[in-house]
Amino acid sequence: MKRTAFFISDGTGITAETLGNSLLAQFESIEFERVTLPYVDSTEKALKAVERINSKAAEKGHPVIIFDTIVNKDIRKIIDQANGLNIDIFTAFLAPIEKALEVESSYSVGKSHSATTSPNYLHRIDAVNFALDNDDGARTRHYAEADIILVGVSRSGKTPTCLYMAMQFGIKAANYPLTEEDMMDLRIPKSLEPFRQKLFGLTIDPDRLAAIRNERRANSRYASLKQCYHEIDEVEMLYQRENIPFISTTDKSIEEISTRIMAETGLERRLQS
Amino acid sequence: MKRTAFFISDGTGITAETLGNSLLAQFESIEFERVTLPYVDSTEKALKAVERINSKAAEKGHPVIIFDTIVNKDIRKIIDQANGLNIDIFTAFLAPIEKALEVESSYSVGKSHSATTSPNYLHRIDAVNFALDNDDGARTRHYAEADIILVGVSRSGKTPTCLYMAMQFGIKAANYPLTEEDMMDLRIPKSLEPFRQKLFGLTIDPDRLAAIRNERRANSRYASLKQCYHEIDEVEMLYQRENIPFISTTDKSIEEISTRIMAETGLERRLQS
Repeated sequence: MKRTAFFISDGTGITAETLGNSLLAQFESIEFERVTLPYVDSTEKALKAVERINSKAAEKGHPVIIFDTIVNKDIRKIIDQANGLNIDIFTAFLAPIEKALEVESSYSVGKSHSATTSPNYLHRIDAVNFALDNDDGARTRHYAEADIILVGVSRSGKTPTCLYMAMQFGIKAANYPLTEEDMMDLRIPKSLEPFRQKLFGLTIDPDRLAAIRNERRANSRYASLKQCYHEIDEVEMLYQRENIPFISTTDKSIEEISTRIMAETGLERRLQS
Repeated sequence: MKRTAFFISDGTGITAETLGNSLLAQFESIEFERVTLPYVDSTEKALKAVERINSKAAEKGHPVIIFDTIVNKDIRKIIDQANGLNIDIFTAFLAPIEKALEVESSYSVGKSHSATTSPNYLHRIDAVNFALDNDDGARTRHYAEADIILVGVSRSGKTPTCLYMAMQFGIKAANYPLTEEDMMDLRIPKSLEPFRQKLFGLTIDPDRLAAIRNERRANSRYASLKQCYHEIDEVEMLYQRENIPFISTTDKSIEEISTRIMAETGLERRLQS
C-alpha cells in the first residue's frame, strides 16, 4: 500500500520535510511517495498546490497527508481546503508559545529569505570552507582557529563528519589522518601537540574498515583485514595512552557521530536552526 | 529579555532543533538561550533532564519552552512533569495520522539508531564522497555518474552548494569552474559537451563577488571590481547563449540555492528525512 505525503512551505520546505519524515518514520509498514512544494508564497501558487494535491488524492483514492509550515494566514487558508489531512505545525504550536512568552509572533511570508545577511549564513560558509581547507592534514597552520580536530586512520569517517559539523552546527572542524609512522611510537604527531585539547579520535570496526577500503582499492595491502586490524589496534592504544576521547563510527550515521561528539566535548552549536 | 528553550530527544535532537528553531524564529523580539539534550533514552536520563529544566526555570523565574520528539511513552511522561511549556510534536500529530492511514504507529526508543544500515546513510556518504572527488573540475571522468554539474566563476558558491545537496538530498553534484579562457569564445568547454543536459549555472552580484574574493586574495587583479564585473558579464552571456539554466546566489542561503536548483531541474531527493 503506497500513500502520498506533501511537504509545503513558503520557504525551502526543509523544516516541513524534517518534521514530516520523522513522523512518517513511525509507520514502518507503509511506503510513502513524497512530494515537496517549496516557495508557495502567493495565493496563485497555493491554488496550484491544492490542485496538485486534489488530483493526487483522486488518483489514489486515499486522502493524502500534508505537512505545512506556511506562516501567512491567507495562503494557509487555501492549503487547508485541499483534500487531505493537514498537519499544520505553526497553527498548532504558535498560540501556546505566544501565551507562555506573553509576546505575539510575527507573521510574514518568506521571512527565511533574509538568511544571507544573518550571522548564521556567514558562519556556515566560513565553517564549510574551513573544513575543506583543513581536510586530511594537508596543513596544520590554521589549527589554532579550529573548534575541534578529528584524528583517525584513513577512511574512518573524518571528512564527512567534519563537513556535517560545519553545515549543521557551524563548527570549525579540521581533520588529521594518523599514519602508521605516527602510531609506531604511540605518541601523537609533534604538529598536533599544541592542540592536544582539541583532539577527538574516531575508530571503527576493522572488518567494516576493510570493506570500505576495498571499495576504494580492492585487494591492496591497505584494504587487507590484517592491516585494518593492526591499524585499529594501534590507534585505540594511542587514544588511551594519550587520553584522547574517542568514538566508534561503526553502525552510526553521520548525524549521530556528530551529535555525540558535540555532547561529549561540550562544544556549542554556532548556528540557530 | 532572554528566555530558555530546551530541545530533547531520544536520538540526535536534530528534528526537535529544526522544528523548535523555526517556531522560535517567529518571535523576533526575544533572544533565546538554547540547550539541546540528545539521547535521552532511559528514565534515569529523563529525570536528570527534568532536574536541569527545573533549575533553569527557577533561576530565570520564567517558564522555559521544551521541544521534545521522544517516542517512548514512559520517558515522555517524565519530561511532561518538568516546569515549562512542553511542545510535544509526536503526541500532537501521530494520532490524527494513524486515523488517516488506518494503521498504528510503532513506538520504540532509539529507532533512529539503525540509521547506518539504511540506504539513506550509504547514499549520503556516497554523495558526499562524490562531491569531494569531483570538486573544482579536478577531473571530469566521473561526470556520467553525476546527477548535476554546477558551473560558475571562482567563488560563486559551487562547492558549498554541491556539499549541501549531497548532505541534504543525497544528490551527486560535481562542479566545474569556468575560467576566462572558457568564456573567451562564449562556448562551454569541450569536456562538458557530453553532459550539457546536467549543467546548471551559478552567478552572483559582481560587487559581492569582489568582496568575497578580497577576503581570499586582497588587492589582487582576481579580486578587483573590474575583473569581477567582466567575468560575471561573460558568464551570464555564456549561460544565455548556451541555454544553460542559472540562478543568482546573491542574498540566498545555501539551503535556498540548493532547494531552488532541485525545483528548477526537477531532480528528486534521494534521501528520506
